[in-house]
Amino acid sequence: MSDSSRSVEDILEAFKGGDLNLDAALEEIRGCYFQDLGHSTVDHDREQRTGAAEVIYGEYKTPEQIAEKFHVLAEAGRNVLATRVNDRAFDAVRERVPGTEHHPTARMISLKQVQTDRQSTAIAVITAGTSDLPVAEEAAITAEFYDNPVLRINDVGVAGVHRLLARIEEIRETRVIVVVAGMEGALPSVVGGLVDKPVIAVPTSVGYGASFNGIAALLGMLNSCASGVSVVNIDNGFGAGFLASTINRL
Amino acid sequence: MSDSSRSVEDILEAFKGGDLNLDAALEEIRGCYFQDLGHSTVDHDREQRTGAAEVIYGEYKTPEQIAEKFHVLAEAGRNVLATRVNDRAFDAVRERVPGTEHHPTARMISLKQVQTDRQSTAIAVITAGTSDLPVAEEAAITAEFYDNPVLRINDVGVAGVHRLLARIEEIRETRVIVVVAGMEGALPSVVGGLVDKPVIAVPTSVGYGASFNGIAALLGMLNSCASGVSVVNIDNGFGAGFLASTINRL
Amino acid sequence: MSDSSRSVEDILEAFKGGDLNLDAALEEIRGCYFQDLGHSTVDHDREQRTGAAEVIYGEYKTPEQIAEKFHVLAEAGRNVLATRVNDRAFDAVRERVPGTEHHPTARMISLKQVQTDRQSTAIAVITAGTSDLPVAEEAAITAEFYDNPVLRINDVGVAGVHRLLARIEEIRETRVIVVVAGMEGALPSVVGGLVDKPVIAVPTSVGYGASFNGIAALLGMLNSCASGVSVVNIDNGFGAGFLASTINRL
Amino acid sequence: MSDSSRSVEDILEAFKGGDLNLDAALEEIRGCYFQDLGHSTVDHDREQRTGAAEVIYGEYKTPEQIAEKFHVLAEAGRNVLATRVNDRAFDAVRERVPGTEHHPTARMISLKQVQTDRQSTAIAVITAGTSDLPVAEEAAITAEFYDNPVLRINDVGVAGVHRLLARIEEIRETRVIVVVAGMEGALPSVVGGLVDKPVIAVPTSVGYGASFNGIAALLGMLNSCASGVSVVNIDNGFGAGFLASTINRL
Amino acid sequence: MSDSSRSVEDILEAFKGGDLNLDAALEEIRGCYFQDLGHSTVDHDREQRTGAAEVIYGEYKTPEQIAEKFHVLAEAGRNVLATRVNDRAFDAVRERVPGTEHHPTARMISLKQVQTDRQSTAIAVITAGTSDLPVAEEAAITAEFYDNPVLRINDVGVAGVHRLLARIEEIRETRVIVVVAGMEGALPSVVGGLVDKPVIAVPTSVGYGASFNGIAALLGMLNSCASGVSVVNIDNGFGAGFLASTINRL
Amino acid sequence: MSDSSRSVEDILEAFKGGDLNLDAALEEIRGCYFQDLGHSTVDHDREQRTGAAEVIYGEYKTPEQIAEKFHVLAEAGRNVLATRVNDRAFDAVRERVPGTEHHPTARMISLKQVQTDRQSTAIAVITAGTSDLPVAEEAAITAEFYDNPVLRINDVGVAGVHRLLARIEEIRETRVIVVVAGMEGALPSVVGGLVDKPVIAVPTSVGYGASFNGIAALLGMLNSCASGVSVVNIDNGFGAGFLASTINRL
Amino acid sequence: MSDSSRSVEDILEAFKGGDLNLDAALEEIRGCYFQDLGHSTVDHDREQRTGAAEVIYGEYKTPEQIAEKFHVLAEAGRNVLATRVNDRAFDAVRERVPGTEHHPTARMISLKQVQTDRQSTAIAVITAGTSDLPVAEEAAITAEFYDNPVLRINDVGVAGVHRLLARIEEIRETRVIVVVAGMEGALPSVVGGLVDKPVIAVPTSVGYGASFNGIAALLGMLNSCASGVSVVNIDNGFGAGFLASTINRL
Amino acid sequence: MSDSSRSVEDILEAFKGGDLNLDAALEEIRGCYFQDLGHSTVDHDREQRTGAAEVIYGEYKTPEQIAEKFHVLAEAGRNVLATRVNDRAFDAVRERVPGTEHHPTARMISLKQVQTDRQSTAIAVITAGTSDLPVAEEAAITAEFYDNPVLRINDVGVAGVHRLLARIEEIRETRVIVVVAGMEGALPSVVGGLVDKPVIAVPTSVGYGASFNGIAALLGMLNSCASGVSVVNIDNGFGAGFLASTINRL
Repeated sequence: MSDSSRSVEDILEAFKGGDLNLDAALEEIRGCYFQDLGHSTVDHDREQRTGAAEVIYGEYKTPEQIAEKFHVLAEAGRNVLATRVNDRAFDAVRERVPGTEHHPTARMISLKQVQTDRQSTAIAVITAGTSDLPVAEEAAITAEFYDNPVLRINDVGVAGVHRLLARIEEIRETRVIVVVAGMEGALPSVVGGLVDKPVIAVPTSVGYGASFNGIAALLGMLNSCASGVSVVNIDNGFGAGFLASTINRL
Repeated sequence: MSDSSRSVEDILEAFKGGDLNLDAALEEIRGCYFQDLGHSTVDHDREQRTGAAEVIYGEYKTPEQIAEKFHVLAEAGRNVLATRVNDRAFDAVRERVPGTEHHPTARMISLKQVQTDRQSTAIAVITAGTSDLPVAEEAAITAEFYDNPVLRINDVGVAGVHRLLARIEEIRETRVIVVVAGMEGALPSVVGGLVDKPVIAVPTSVGYGASFNGIAALLGMLNSCASGVSVVNIDNGFGAGFLASTINRL
Repeated sequence: MSDSSRSVEDILEAFKGGDLNLDAALEEIRGCYFQDLGHSTVDHDREQRTGAAEVIYGEYKTPEQIAEKFHVLAEAGRNVLATRVNDRAFDAVRERVPGTEHHPTARMISLKQVQTDRQSTAIAVITAGTSDLPVAEEAAITAEFYDNPVLRINDVGVAGVHRLLARIEEIRETRVIVVVAGMEGALPSVVGGLVDKPVIAVPTSVGYGASFNGIAALLGMLNSCASGVSVVNIDNGFGAGFLASTINRL
Repeated sequence: MSDSSRSVEDILEAFKGGDLNLDAALEEIRGCYFQDLGHSTVDHDREQRTGAAEVIYGEYKTPEQIAEKFHVLAEAGRNVLATRVNDRAFDAVRERVPGTEHHPTARMISLKQVQTDRQSTAIAVITAGTSDLPVAEEAAITAEFYDNPVLRINDVGVAGVHRLLARIEEIRETRVIVVVAGMEGALPSVVGGLVDKPVIAVPTSVGYGASFNGIAALLGMLNSCASGVSVVNIDNGFGAGFLASTINRL
Repeated sequence: MSDSSRSVEDILEAFKGGDLNLDAALEEIRGCYFQDLGHSTVDHDREQRTGAAEVIYGEYKTPEQIAEKFHVLAEAGRNVLATRVNDRAFDAVRERVPGTEHHPTARMISLKQVQTDRQSTAIAVITAGTSDLPVAEEAAITAEFYDNPVLRINDVGVAGVHRLLARIEEIRETRVIVVVAGMEGALPSVVGGLVDKPVIAVPTSVGYGASFNGIAALLGMLNSCASGVSVVNIDNGFGAGFLASTINRL
Repeated sequence: MSDSSRSVEDILEAFKGGDLNLDAALEEIRGCYFQDLGHSTVDHDREQRTGAAEVIYGEYKTPEQIAEKFHVLAEAGRNVLATRVNDRAFDAVRERVPGTEHHPTARMISLKQVQTDRQSTAIAVITAGTSDLPVAEEAAITAEFYDNPVLRINDVGVAGVHRLLARIEEIRETRVIVVVAGMEGALPSVVGGLVDKPVIAVPTSVGYGASFNGIAALLGMLNSCASGVSVVNIDNGFGAGFLASTINRL
Repeated sequence: MSDSSRSVEDILEAFKGGDLNLDAALEEIRGCYFQDLGHSTVDHDREQRTGAAEVIYGEYKTPEQIAEKFHVLAEAGRNVLATRVNDRAFDAVRERVPGTEHHPTARMISLKQVQTDRQSTAIAVITAGTSDLPVAEEAAITAEFYDNPVLRINDVGVAGVHRLLARIEEIRETRVIVVVAGMEGALPSVVGGLVDKPVIAVPTSVGYGASFNGIAALLGMLNSCASGVSVVNIDNGFGAGFLASTINRL
Repeated sequence: MSDSSRSVEDILEAFKGGDLNLDAALEEIRGCYFQDLGHSTVDHDREQRTGAAEVIYGEYKTPEQIAEKFHVLAEAGRNVLATRVNDRAFDAVRERVPGTEHHPTARMISLKQVQTDRQSTAIAVITAGTSDLPVAEEAAITAEFYDNPVLRINDVGVAGVHRLLARIEEIRETRVIVVVAGMEGALPSVVGGLVDKPVIAVPTSVGYGASFNGIAALLGMLNSCASGVSVVNIDNGFGAGFLASTINRL
């Protein structure tokens, strides 16, 4: 946005040296501050660590808009991730941008052009049932996009708790755990009681009747009797994956 | 209500024999039917099996009303159970009726005057946490009042699932299982996946914030991914104990 | 999953006898425990009684996935039940698996290959209105699949209570009662007051406006003033039928 | 409020006759219209029929305010009714106004000074349980205050439907039926199916847990499968009694 | 259902006379009572007054089912009303049954074959906005079907209260008033304050955002500060029209 | 509606002068009052200021109805605005009425035929994200239609607060501020804390999961910790724009 | 907070002149910006116009904390307003600070020490019922504190619409209108349809049952069919009064 | 719980060596597994790192129960933390256990007896308003109890965003950020957009009216448009502090 703008320090010196009059100096200093606050700082840090990734949220965009935005970012040499992409958008991006990777279950498209350093510790992504897979894959692909190893464990819901127990040692070796569940949303509590790592719970809209499109799972997770569990929005696989990566890369 | 009333059969014969005119016969037959339908039939069956128990729901009654009602039923030689009884009502009943048993945790008073046949198979009453005990005890005392053996297992919530697993064999030996839990209400799902007996889930109002006085637990239980689980009202320990007894005595 | 695995006892003896080294013994013992806990035990019991039935939940699966899963289980000689099956899935299974029975109202497909012992006592499945039939049939077919006799009584809602009363004697002869109702969901309370058997209430999403897709019926049932009533999720006919069978076969 | 004001007709004549100038005529005509619209008209009709009754809603008023307002209306020779009155207000009114009648269950105070014509047809007020009595009495006392005969039938909830059936003939002889119920609120549906008179359903806040202070009963009543049922606010006994009287006096 | 069955009186005499043995007499008497209770009594009354009308609720039925049911009832010489009928059902009925009247706005079909006595007093059906017309027409057509004169007043919502005031005298001449409104649902309160007749409020799902498909209107109406207002379910025009007719014909 | 009607003053004089008998005078005076109250007065004011604008709410109307209504108003020489117009309605109006302006993002059509005086002070319309644009444009176009200058600022949501800060001086120069946001709806609070002008908050249904179609944003805005913020219905861009214009033109 | 800090301009000149080294200049400039953004600017404007008013929100504070804070601000010569003050806090402030004005109905305390310029145009504050007075007074006192004339109109709810109509001309002469109503919350819609000024609707928690502590009123107001209406939080009289003043002083 | 129990390895060798018969070996091995699963493993890890801390949740316990439990743990040489402690419990613990530290704002009591290693990186705990302090202090004290440095920043809510910006550099130097806010709950979104660290959002029940005891804040946080934000239960300061410590100590 303002890569070419100089620092406050430089402006001060320019003003002192007479290269800049008072009004221009005031104007330019003000611009610095608004850019320095918040976003740009964050972005610079993030870019250096993650390879300048950009995320396109596909929900309210047409296939054409997604393809166009993807194309522009790809041209700029960035790593790009698109979420909530439907079939027509898959085709639109494929036609427009070469070299993309498509993840139909997760409804995502990724493009990796810049090499970033791979994290050594892993993130676990666990589902209660196979119907939770689209959300879980959104989390897993996001975590992988930011160069984290991911351990996927599927269909270990609480109605057959031995399935989880059989895999618990593997899970304990990861550093952050994403647990994805619909219906009663109880899995994060059980997992949270078996590990001492941060657990990110993702309620899904899987279920019917009194599941109320994920409210039951959401409330179950917020009321988890296990410490160390926090919750993101219903079906927010991307948010969980991003947060897991943020924690894993600390 | 109509212990002295005769059967339709007797009325018909009396009419045929001229001991009853048409109007009187019609009137009396009509009375029979309204009594035969529903309640009285049920009550007779129930009485014979359970020892003529009567239940006083204490919620909207004054201590004096509870004591009076208890006294009348006790005088009639019945077995009596009072639920949702507060401290002042405990005292009022104690003064009025000798020989009652008081259950402060369950907030109940019982009186057993008629011997009934004891069921050989047991009912399990399991809690997720110690805060769920009042509701669980209401279920357990109810089940015992109707002469069922009760296996109590306390504080085996899902955030420490090994505690449940350590007791699962005992639980499997019972015939009906009542699971009492607040907060996320996940315990019935886990239990339901480990046994092949009917599980009656009782959500409690234990919790805070997004537990919404038991709604989170209620929804969790209704959405249980385990088959064989059904749910009663929030904090309805009596209903769960009564239903468990009904099933156990089938 | 591990039909060929030996018991802990056998492993200990093998280790003592030197047929197994320490590491292998530890590994194998651990495996036993995870299998012994929960699912496998349950499944063995269930299989023996019910003829190795498997249930496919069709909601989040494509017709092809349902047909494939059905095919595999049928090939294995199991009894198979598929729920929430749409028209296209009916066709897909019919093409793939011979000898299946199709239940369009219940949206189910069943295959009975293994003979199981028929229960002598019956389950009643009662509806408030004809619009509740799909859910009721899901319960009834499920109960029949597990070899329970089923008494179907349709359209006896509380706005014409004489219709129920005219059939109450038949209902009293069954051992477990499933009551299916939408709108105000009052039928289970009325039935519960007329019988002394367990009543499983199934709210349906039938209704409009303030029925809120079954919430009104659900709340009505949870607040039933009749004892002995418990509730399953909205439209959960399968769960009710399964639980009824579990109770009936105790 | 404006008993002494003349009609538009009189004003016109006065203006024509010169007794009134233009401005005064305009002003006075405007006043007439605002009085003619709505309230005053209604009140005049109502007064003539019901004996100039006034109702004091006690909820947000202090005992002193209630007593003062009651005193003023009594002095004016009106019939007066106060609702939602607590113990201290009972005393305050008793001290201030002689001849009042106090209804503790209904939490009401009435004063009848003007004779009104008694309606020949009756209003039935029916409760599901004894806990619903305060609301039912508010309805019954209101109906009686407006000079309607009232048939009270108590504790005939749907879990013992024979109790209602035993009284149905009496109920059928009334002209309007008020049905008061908490918990699942199913009684109006059952009554509505047995009569062909208007049924006014009053949900009460009686219950616990998922009754949500009367929401379950309210929803149950709104979804009634019986035609001819309408609903008032939770615990609104006065509204039901007033409407029943309005219908009965048509 | 049992038109040919004899009365209890006749059965008694037949038994006395020996034409019937005890078992047969008992059986037949029981049958009488179940028919006498409730529905049949009601229906006979209703039929005589209203011309044997039958109502078909079209919501959960296919066009073919609606047409078939309509045909059968028409053949039996009944008056028939079908509600919630879509375009395809209109065609299906038209093909099958001659002489029907179609009401597209109300989504209803009626057939009048039996003459009934016309009520002299009218019912007002008032809407807040033109979008409320389908529900209002459902009420109006229903009222007319049961032979009540109907005064239709449209689009007099509270945001232009003078429109209502201009018609208030006409409204006051009717005997029952149905008020149909979506959005904030305030019209029944205003009308209720201007008349002394029963007001039946019908919330509609008209609106968007925080109208929550009619919940805002429903709550507004339940909380009406005007006495004499009661409420039916969201969009329940039929229920309001039927109740209005019931009251008007008292 | 009654442009030709005379004033009460004139009627009085006519009556006095004998040109009008008593009944006619009474009738005509009554008509005046009902017209004088409310609407007509308002409309006259509004028309003079805004150029006789009429607004067509397109939601529940067919394309043909919208086009017809638009045509009639256009013929009458009015300024016309149509909201919530879909693609087919765009075409229908275009064919029928020449000279209209179409606003696809806002889903509106406008026609300006009468010149009105342009307000000198501006209204700001600010969005949190680009997905909020349709609602924001509805507000902006409405404000412009009533001849207010509009400052549009897009995509300055709170997750990048520097973007807002960079534009805050421009915003402070406007006189009324409309803030449009979905998801957590936090932007109005931040804006409200930075300005001393009235802020009209518009929640949008943008979001998913626990946004509950705008409820989260609505609640966030109602609970704004900034003074000077008020809220309109979810997605109600028109209401916000109209209110902003009303304030700006004070 | 930083009254003694110099402007960026001054700092630049000081740096240029050598009175400040680079680090000190950078530090001081940064400080300026954080102060310049938002609050301080606003406050300075506000202070000059309104007499340096400070508002103490009393809800979560002890009487001692309120008195202490009030004392400090009074000592500083400010105008002070405290809201949501209970009886004990009234006494605590009275003891500590002389010259305060107490408003028991509004639960507020005010102190006016600095003269501000009085607004010539008035704000109307209207209530539906007398129970709404505390909230209305909070709005009115707030408006007066900021030196706006206030027209109070009480108890003109929609169930007696003539009461409002009788005062509508007065209301039309004000510039901003605050309408306070509980129960069905319909009054703002009616007022909004009769005036062309901005209407600020304040729902109150007055009511019972399905009023849900103000939700019914809130929803009613959000769905107002009148344009020009916006809404603040339930019982937020202060917010409404402050916003009305902000608009009135534009 | 089982410190003295031997490993499976040791048991196997003992069995092989004949020191243990088959039954005893089977029994002891089973015991191991139930201990090894879950809790004990976790606890050992946790104990070593955190100094064997135990947490007493005070909500449903009497002062005596809290004091007794605290006493027992203190005697055992553990570090102890009690939450949700009221005044009477403070006194009870003080009397019973010497050396405890009391935190009245946070309603906590802590006892540190075992030295643990202090984390070098800090946790930020930020509040929107001073009313959020009790919950924030619960988080901060918890974090400190587990030996994390804590940066407290108070009263930087979004309605004065410059207050947050003035402290943002300090915040960026911490490793995990807890943000505590009631009302609209917008602060976590703003913070989340300014940092690249994990943000744990804690909604509080601070607010009134449409805050619905924290629901508004909870929904706001779940819908945060900033990535990297997750949420815990309303008022769950302990959970946030514990999770922050878990992440900070990774």
